[in-house]
Amino acid sequence: MNTNVRLKLPFVCFAWQIAMIILFGVFVRYNNESDAHWVQNMAQNNITSAIENDFYYRYPSFQDVHVMIFVGFGFLMTFLKRYSFGGVGFNFLIAAFGIQWALLMQGWFHSLDPSTGKIYIGIENLINADFCVAGCLIAYGAVLGKVSPVQLMVMTLFGVTLYAVEEYIILNLLHAIDAGGSMIIHVFGGYYGLAISWVLYRPNLHQSKHLQGSVYHSDTFAMIGTLFLWMFWPSFNSATTYHGDGQHRAAINTYLCLTSCVLTTVAISSLSQKTGKLDMVHIQNSTLAGGVAMGTAAVFMVSPYGALIVGFCCGILSTMGYLYISPFLEKTLKIHDTCGIHNLHAMPGVIGGIVGAITAATASESVYGMLINTFDFTGNFKDRTVFAQGGYQAAGMCVAMVFGIGGGAIVGAILRFPIWGDPADENCNDDDVYWEVPQDEEDQLESVPPILEYCNYMTNKPEDES
Amino acid sequence: MNTNVRLKLPFVCFAWQIAMIILFGVFVRYNNESDAHWVQNMAQNNITSAIENDFYYRYPSFQDVHVMIFVGFGFLMTFLKRYSFGGVGFNFLIAAFGIQWALLMQGWFHSLDPSTGKIYIGIENLINADFCVAGCLIAYGAVLGKVSPVQLMVMTLFGVTLYAVEEYIILNLLHAIDAGGSMIIHVFGGYYGLAISWVLYRPNLHQSKHLQGSVYHSDTFAMIGTLFLWMFWPSFNSATTYHGDGQHRAAINTYLCLTSCVLTTVAISSLSQKTGKLDMVHIQNSTLAGGVAMGTAAVFMVSPYGALIVGFCCGILSTMGYLYISPFLEKTLKIHDTCGIHNLHAMPGVIGGIVGAITAATASESVYGMLINTFDFTGNFKDRTVFAQGGYQAAGMCVAMVFGIGGGAIVGAILRFPIWGDPADENCNDDDVYWEVPQDEEDQLESVPPILEYCNYMTNKPEDES
Amino acid sequence: MNTNVRLKLPFVCFAWQIAMIILFGVFVRYNNESDAHWVQNMAQNNITSAIENDFYYRYPSFQDVHVMIFVGFGFLMTFLKRYSFGGVGFNFLIAAFGIQWALLMQGWFHSLDPSTGKIYIGIENLINADFCVAGCLIAYGAVLGKVSPVQLMVMTLFGVTLYAVEEYIILNLLHAIDAGGSMIIHVFGGYYGLAISWVLYRPNLHQSKHLQGSVYHSDTFAMIGTLFLWMFWPSFNSATTYHGDGQHRAAINTYLCLTSCVLTTVAISSLSQKTGKLDMVHIQNSTLAGGVAMGTAAVFMVSPYGALIVGFCCGILSTMGYLYISPFLEKTLKIHDTCGIHNLHAMPGVIGGIVGAITAATASESVYGMLINTFDFTGNFKDRTVFAQGGYQAAGMCVAMVFGIGGGAIVGAILRFPIWGDPADENCNDDDVYWEVPQDEEDQLESVPPILEYCNYMTNKPEDES
Repeated sequence: MNTNVRLKLPFVCFAWQIAMIILFGVFVRYNNESDAHWVQNMAQNNITSAIENDFYYRYPSFQDVHVMIFVGFGFLMTFLKRYSFGGVGFNFLIAAFGIQWALLMQGWFHSLDPSTGKIYIGIENLINADFCVAGCLIAYGAVLGKVSPVQLMVMTLFGVTLYAVEEYIILNLLHAIDAGGSMIIHVFGGYYGLAISWVLYRPNLHQSKHLQGSVYHSDTFAMIGTLFLWMFWPSFNSATTYHGDGQHRAAINTYLCLTSCVLTTVAISSLSQKTGKLDMVHIQNSTLAGGVAMGTAAVFMVSPYGALIVGFCCGILSTMGYLYISPFLEKTLKIHDTCGIHNLHAMPGVIGGIVGAITAATASESVYGMLINTFDFTGNFKDRTVFAQGGYQAAGMCVAMVFGIGGGAIVGAILRFPIWGDPADENCNDDDVYWEVPQDEEDQLESVPPILEYCNYMTNKPEDES
Repeated sequence: MNTNVRLKLPFVCFAWQIAMIILFGVFVRYNNESDAHWVQNMAQNNITSAIENDFYYRYPSFQDVHVMIFVGFGFLMTFLKRYSFGGVGFNFLIAAFGIQWALLMQGWFHSLDPSTGKIYIGIENLINADFCVAGCLIAYGAVLGKVSPVQLMVMTLFGVTLYAVEEYIILNLLHAIDAGGSMIIHVFGGYYGLAISWVLYRPNLHQSKHLQGSVYHSDTFAMIGTLFLWMFWPSFNSATTYHGDGQHRAAINTYLCLTSCVLTTVAISSLSQKTGKLDMVHIQNSTLAGGVAMGTAAVFMVSPYGALIVGFCCGILSTMGYLYISPFLEKTLKIHDTCGIHNLHAMPGVIGGIVGAITAATASESVYGMLINTFDFTGNFKDRTVFAQGGYQAAGMCVAMVFGIGGGAIVGAILRFPIWGDPADENCNDDDVYWEVPQDEEDQLESVPPILEYCNYMTNKPEDES
Repeated sequence: MNTNVRLKLPFVCFAWQIAMIILFGVFVRYNNESDAHWVQNMAQNNITSAIENDFYYRYPSFQDVHVMIFVGFGFLMTFLKRYSFGGVGFNFLIAAFGIQWALLMQGWFHSLDPSTGKIYIGIENLINADFCVAGCLIAYGAVLGKVSPVQLMVMTLFGVTLYAVEEYIILNLLHAIDAGGSMIIHVFGGYYGLAISWVLYRPNLHQSKHLQGSVYHSDTFAMIGTLFLWMFWPSFNSATTYHGDGQHRAAINTYLCLTSCVLTTVAISSLSQKTGKLDMVHIQNSTLAGGVAMGTAAVFMVSPYGALIVGFCCGILSTMGYLYISPFLEKTLKIHDTCGIHNLHAMPGVIGGIVGAITAATASESVYGMLINTFDFTGNFKDRTVFAQGGYQAAGMCVAMVFGIGGGAIVGAILRFPIWGDPADENCNDDDVYWEVPQDEEDQLESVPPILEYCNYMTNKPEDES
């Protein structure tokens, strides 16, 4: 197979970047709070202090989310022994492209002023763009090591587009709530990736089996990704929730859910081995399932012990997934899932959607004070009951799943065209295909002389010494 | 020895997590600012803007502290050549458990509403839980590589309990100030760990000597931990100080103290070697002593040059500790201290306590404006003088030390029971006991053929070439 | 050459640290917002909430900048196969010294109250000190692996001094705007380092050629540095801009500029290789050029698509620089630039200065609302036109370049004195000169026995097996 991407990759990068510049030129402007006119507007809007700019509510959370996208997802994917460059590097590339395209796609749906035809952006748009890209990076996890960077760019282009549409349907038409994106990000991203991996199934992947799995230091690198995801997930789920108690509660719920998830992950991981040894794959991934599952309900009054219960279940389910469901998916359904996104994102995302639907359906004024604040029952939705809201939440999850599976199948078919420079089966999981890899082998040769001397010594040493 | 923890570890994780869920269900609720009723309360309390929610004062600092706990402590303990998984992984496990238990223990002492019997939690509780766990993670540093995960869980359970009690005595009964926890966290945690290590002393630890020490990349990993601790320590010491100038000053003092600590650490490290070479152990650890020592006095008006002086002394003392005191402790007192927590936490914590006592005793209204703001001389303490305050600060340090040494001795005795799956002497410092370690050896075998070819070439090469 | 720094390095560290303490004692005090009197001042100044303390506007950005300085710059310089300790460790040392000296130097110029003769510091001073040190760390990139820590300390002492002077000229006398320091930090730091490297040129550096370049894991470590710089650059460029829309817009512009820079870097990197493979050097460095180039104009109304265009150009220019200009500089001008700071800082900084000058010169009230807010046309500068402002911006860049080249040449001459313990040509890029390096070789010896067995087996195996 021709894996030379010398013309394809630069062409895609240049073409899409130029398209972005043109579209941004036509459509994108600063919003009210990031425009230099804001100081004058403050006075008109009775804002007395610059600290009321949305920037100060959201920027710390935004930076945490940003770290999750680039360091979290990036380093989590460095675990393969010879695919660390591809893991962190391609993650970097597609995220950088994806957030531009997401600003446009989401902008057209959510931030377009019909009177001027412009998209007005501020810090919240940047967070949402990062969220949108997260869906595509999840999908990358399923095909890690098996696709070319050109395929990843195509996958991201379509992924962001599909995401923006399903997000619009779920948030605006169904008026579901999904602040941390259990459904919109994780269910969609998970099934999108799995469907693509299913279409691109490689029956002879065992030919690169020697490059599957990790080495000691690649597993340690991956823990950097795990921890930054784990630590900053409270910021992820609270980043776009409403000011004040909304952000506050979302952070607390996610924090608690993640802690209990760690304990049950460790428990199941240890139980699953004859000798009780822990498996790094579980620690790196299943400990995060609690953050995924708290995505929809984070802003709800699930109560602290409720959050702990969700994490408890997710740690078990996700680790079980690595032990039993992933092998089943590969053997029976022919879906190879490199990072186990089904266990980390798809299943916990579904749990999150269900938890969200139940919590919404059982909300009451005694618990919430004014339901209108949390559920935004205004405008077209002012007569909606919480019970109906529960139903719409569930409907939202179905939409996410349909978009993921359907979209992934179609995009997978596009990626099968033999024009994208994808690697042969025996070259999978190998950075050497798309990267100039430094010659560590030279080090080995340099270390030979002392070994040789030692050999000679061992061979020729006097008998009495041995 | 039986190091199979297949039943013990899952049992402990499940039992304790279920207990947490039940206790949270009975006791823990959202506090005023994280509850959905907050919007209504705002109006009643004359709060005009959501930005006044405590979340916005403390959340950025909280996330920095969170990074210190999981990445900082975790990666600092990856320095051993074959115990990186245990360093970062067990740190992750016990911190995740500990913060749940800390929310309860600290909640009963500090956030319990007697009228309802509930603990009301908000962002400040999360920070304090992270602080509490820090004490246990410090203790882990003394026994790193020598205990089983089950022992660590037990150690954390008791550690958090003891911490909450001594904290209550020091902060509430003695009314001492210790915002960054020089005494409460570092003196307690340090002596707690040393006492445990003393009870668990292994005279034959030299049997795993080949696994002591670091390799090149494990030292580089440890620098990730060092730097995140160093950078975010200003947030640690300022996270729970009072709003406004309190947080502002605590951050500045800590920042300055840490900078001068780096220079004297480097100086002593270089001086201590015949060839003037620097020792990574010192750079990784002693550079942080300034942050520890500024824990009590950070919020006081120590003045910028005062902060520099504290750092100056701590860098010297801590590095000297690694050179002379640690070997002495091991040889004479039979205390083996894997990470040198005596030099990084215990001694600098004592310095911090002393600095705090002196600074408090010499406080004056001309320097502080109103002493009541900084020292909170209200209620039962409204007649206390600053000189008395200095005495109570010193008393607080003694309490922390007594709890650390006494508690550690008792917990150490519990951990000696031969039921916890601890490793044999020759298996210490080896991830292979509790983790599925990837087979790097295969790599070596794969690299043999070229070496063999080279050997053959070297052996058979014509004489004229050599 | 004598590389024993056992007396020199401790002497320099102690002497300078003691000098800092004395100077801080004489000059440095808390400013209004970090002093305990602030609570009383709040009432006088009609500040109703503690959240108005500058701390809450700037502290999250400060911590991001702090991460860039210590983890970003530090880990970016770990890429060499045996100089990771020196990269991250010496970066740590000189940054810790430099920020102290910067607080003084910048304080004398900007925060000195003539009536009391004191420098009053707050969070903004800490950010500016970090900025100042960034200039010296950039310069370190040019001489990485080729100088002693004593030389680095000298280089930092003079670097900070020169920086403070040129900053005063550019910001105060010329009244140019340079919030993210394209000119003040990057142009100055870049040319300062290149001039030093030119004076210290080593014609026989090829003697340590086997230690140039990276290995697989050192490149992965360097990506930690790259990503933290890339992610937090929006905070860097917005950290000291004016409250509200100023910080908001600066962050958005930098974020956008960096995204497009990634795509063109990848494109050119792939184009430049026959096989289309990507080069880690480009990904690690050129992706950051957009942040540098947006330093001056970040706060201006460059508009989102303008930011994308700047990033587009910088990715191309910087990668081209690694391919063509760096070899030219080394071959023709005898400037060896280890990290390629000319491509990452100097050139993009010049672009940034030009973009800033053009954007300022074309500013209009219709776009900016009130020009006075952004350009601060008050006091002596109240009659300045935007067109004149463009000229002064350009003049500022020339000042930065002159200070960099001139200062670097002089400091380079000082560093040539044979008293600083610099390494011989064959010892360059080798941590073993200044660090106690752990004995990885022992591991190799331990791995010999199995290899030997394998050798014996291969040599003696029966013919029928082969």
